[in-house]
Amino acid sequence: MKIKRVLISVSDKSGLKELVYVLNKIGVEIISTGGTKNYIQSLGVNVIDISSYTGFSEILDGRVKTLHPKIHAGLLAVRDNEKHAEIMKEKNIPYIDMVIVNLYPFSEVIRKAGVTFDEAIENIDIGGPSMLRSAAKNFQSVAVVSSPNQYEKVALELEALQGELSLSTRKSLAVDVFKKTSEYDNLIFKYLLNEQGEEDKNNDARLFPENYSVEFLKLFDLRYGENPHQKGAFYKDIFSNSSGIVNAVKLQGKELSFNNILDLDSAWKVSLEFEKPAAVIVKHNNPCGVAMNDTLETAFIDALDADRESSFGGIMAFNRAITASMAELILKEGGFIECVLAPDYDSGALEFFATKKNIRVLKMPFIGINQSKEFDLKKVIGGALLQELDMKNISANDLKIVTKIKPSASDIDSLLFAWKVVKHVKSNAIVLANGSKTIGIGAGQMSRVNSVKIAIQRAGNKTKGAFLASDAFFPMPDSITEAVNAGVRAIIQPGGSIKDNEVIEECDKHDIAMVFTCARHFRH
Amino acid sequence: MKIKRVLISVSDKSGLKELVYVLNKIGVEIISTGGTKNYIQSLGVNVIDISSYTGFSEILDGRVKTLHPKIHAGLLAVRDNEKHAEIMKEKNIPYIDMVIVNLYPFSEVIRKAGVTFDEAIENIDIGGPSMLRSAAKNFQSVAVVSSPNQYEKVALELEALQGELSLSTRKSLAVDVFKKTSEYDNLIFKYLLNEQGEEDKNNDARLFPENYSVEFLKLFDLRYGENPHQKGAFYKDIFSNSSGIVNAVKLQGKELSFNNILDLDSAWKVSLEFEKPAAVIVKHNNPCGVAMNDTLETAFIDALDADRESSFGGIMAFNRAITASMAELILKEGGFIECVLAPDYDSGALEFFATKKNIRVLKMPFIGINQSKEFDLKKVIGGALLQELDMKNISANDLKIVTKIKPSASDIDSLLFAWKVVKHVKSNAIVLANGSKTIGIGAGQMSRVNSVKIAIQRAGNKTKGAFLASDAFFPMPDSITEAVNAGVRAIIQPGGSIKDNEVIEECDKHDIAMVFTCARHFRH
Repeated sequence: MKIKRVLISVSDKSGLKELVYVLNKIGVEIISTGGTKNYIQSLGVNVIDISSYTGFSEILDGRVKTLHPKIHAGLLAVRDNEKHAEIMKEKNIPYIDMVIVNLYPFSEVIRKAGVTFDEAIENIDIGGPSMLRSAAKNFQSVAVVSSPNQYEKVALELEALQGELSLSTRKSLAVDVFKKTSEYDNLIFKYLLNEQGEEDKNNDARLFPENYSVEFLKLFDLRYGENPHQKGAFYKDIFSNSSGIVNAVKLQGKELSFNNILDLDSAWKVSLEFEKPAAVIVKHNNPCGVAMNDTLETAFIDALDADRESSFGGIMAFNRAITASMAELILKEGGFIECVLAPDYDSGALEFFATKKNIRVLKMPFIGINQSKEFDLKKVIGGALLQELDMKNISANDLKIVTKIKPSASDIDSLLFAWKVVKHVKSNAIVLANGSKTIGIGAGQMSRVNSVKIAIQRAGNKTKGAFLASDAFFPMPDSITEAVNAGVRAIIQPGGSIKDNEVIEECDKHDIAMVFTCARHFRH
Repeated sequence: MKIKRVLISVSDKSGLKELVYVLNKIGVEIISTGGTKNYIQSLGVNVIDISSYTGFSEILDGRVKTLHPKIHAGLLAVRDNEKHAEIMKEKNIPYIDMVIVNLYPFSEVIRKAGVTFDEAIENIDIGGPSMLRSAAKNFQSVAVVSSPNQYEKVALELEALQGELSLSTRKSLAVDVFKKTSEYDNLIFKYLLNEQGEEDKNNDARLFPENYSVEFLKLFDLRYGENPHQKGAFYKDIFSNSSGIVNAVKLQGKELSFNNILDLDSAWKVSLEFEKPAAVIVKHNNPCGVAMNDTLETAFIDALDADRESSFGGIMAFNRAITASMAELILKEGGFIECVLAPDYDSGALEFFATKKNIRVLKMPFIGINQSKEFDLKKVIGGALLQELDMKNISANDLKIVTKIKPSASDIDSLLFAWKVVKHVKSNAIVLANGSKTIGIGAGQMSRVNSVKIAIQRAGNKTKGAFLASDAFFPMPDSITEAVNAGVRAIIQPGGSIKDNEVIEECDKHDIAMVFTCARHFRH
């Protein structure tokens, strides 16, 4: 059955030109609306305005233009039904054999920064889904094209079959429609639900309800996942309104990899801990150097000096804008760098980075995390563990001094710095710090004392007079022994072991200070 | 705003009577279609036929009756928009303040025995969803009732507010609409897809679509998340049909914690790698001892001996049923144990465990993972990284021998054993193995050579003659130097570094064998 009449109404005009040319060559009559009509005319192709076709002019700012019986009867009439044919003739309603429609971009609109609720609602498409659904229901007679990525296949088949589309193609196009309309309305549902429920989000039922639906919008496909044999993609949580790597703008460099994104997220979260200029270097999702100082330059060199070996191929995050001289320093000292992340860059800085095309340079406003709309998820086979983010912060007042030796005010500052970092290191985690820079990090160990040994081994001689943070309590005093033998000056840890007394005793025996935070920071 | 005009079109008439009486009492004008109209008339209530209202008669066997601009403009006009008011007046289109619509029962129809494809298609409602969606979009002005179970609440509020419905009720009704239309079209999509055939279900577009919706069902709330200050819950993915910790049955012991579940999942996944009896001990989401042997007893002792220090407080998984004597051995040798996981237990075994009430004993059929329905997800702030599971397996045939020294068949077995384990260790990961048991594991390090050093330090003297697996290539030959100095006999690694030549040369210099897998196993 040859296609004689097509209705086109699209918000995304990409790729349309070529398909319109094919339709025009076949001699199809084209009906169209507003902007699409103007676009087709600009291609030099004849087009009939929908208002003159229906005899009803578009009203209510475009809210009503295609919701007309002449359109829908044209789409819904069953071609080989004699009664249908009769009434169509009697009412003088022509068949419409094909529609090309894509929907108002609701998902894109709600992703835009600062979009209002009214704007979102205005972008709920009514006429589009109706036409798509009418045509899809009647796929025995009508072809329905709902996405630019179908154009090429459709155009090829139209040419090959001299103006026809096969039944199997029409059916497959109809299947795509119901998938699309279903997803479209699901997104609207979730959006409205989210907007509706601000007031009672913080009660537990809302936080972890019986049915938990997570809605993601794809930002981009990844070249591969964590490893080359795994496919992967990066998605935005539609309900989140936090700044985050999902909103970062890449100013230069190769495409981001799965592991880049994971590391950038980690590095950024560490950098949020500090008010003063700070630099964070991450490798394999663990910080390997973190420092805070009066200037970004000194913080960077401190972070780098913490572990130059591990920093090779690292992700670097800064909580201040990068100047030209800072960019020069990064390139001079940083060695092989995968990504740089900062809230902003001078134009001079970008010129420096431009000389190293492979470095991914990302800009992201550091506006923090809206905790109430965020959650953490650990995937297991068949399900997932959901939890609140670990956003616990403590101050000097929260500390419980448990040793005979009391830490000085400056000791406390150093201990709190180490504590802020250890929160972001994979468990069992030990951080050795000096002032406000790390000097050795023990990460991801199955035994705590081994993590202590690793941190000491990284820090070397610098361990003398250093401050040690442990993400969880010491089950035994052996870690303390290792620490004091290496010269550690004071320790910060949650406390809570049944052997706390022995642990405290070991500190007292060696005249070092220890404080309890009464909060744990496991991170797996 | 008082409701003056309502459009009613329902396929399910249950409960409608009472609501119609309330509407009639308020003095609302009722417009209706076909069977609904006859029903309302039979209640002795005045009703206007939709055809006389629009001036367009129902055609195409009811396929087109409400798809009319007079209806949709009546629903979509923004009441406080002056331009809208003007055009409505000019065109003489009255506002419709409420719709009561339910959809053709597509789900009931397709569940009926012997239903034909054409019958199913005929039951795709077109006019209904259009009206529901128009009214829902305009919930600021219009009330939309889409289900009989809303009638009572709506009737009560109409009476209480003297013919009005509050904005919050209208919004909540609109949210219900998009949930309903989304589910309706999703069902049609799934039905058509199923009818269409299985052929193209596994293509990439379906794997990571633009909109990704994950649906979870809560299994239970957790006492807390990863740390006591974080709330958490455990969920099942409703689309998964794999066996997994979500299906494990707890036979005794305290409630599972967040970290227990994470570790159980990891331990179980390692144990799935082996055909022969195997034991896996996990701490902090990393294996600290893994062994395969002719009996479960010997495998267990081998796994334990790999690192008794780290095994303290560990999770133990076995791929064979636990006998009474095995349970006795676990309790005697295992020390402090958090959880035991196995496919089954003898009653005698359970009696032994009953003497240690705190140990969580879990039973789970080891039937493997249905990869096509599973995915991995890494959460970042504001979004997530999605990827396929890492299910890559290699055999001896896939290995590329790159050194002058060729590994023997038994060397290859040991290397492949180490390789199966290193896949499950957090990166940078190094596994030292001897035969089919691990002897030292370096996990979670930011530099690879440091991971080598840690593994060697754990293995001690046992490193002599051992086999080393690295989850990713060696960026430099320094790791090889460390390994050969400690007595490593052969190495398995992906290869692919720009310094592969230097790495191979270092092996050749010390007469050890190395094989490339050409596959990487990062795990973060």
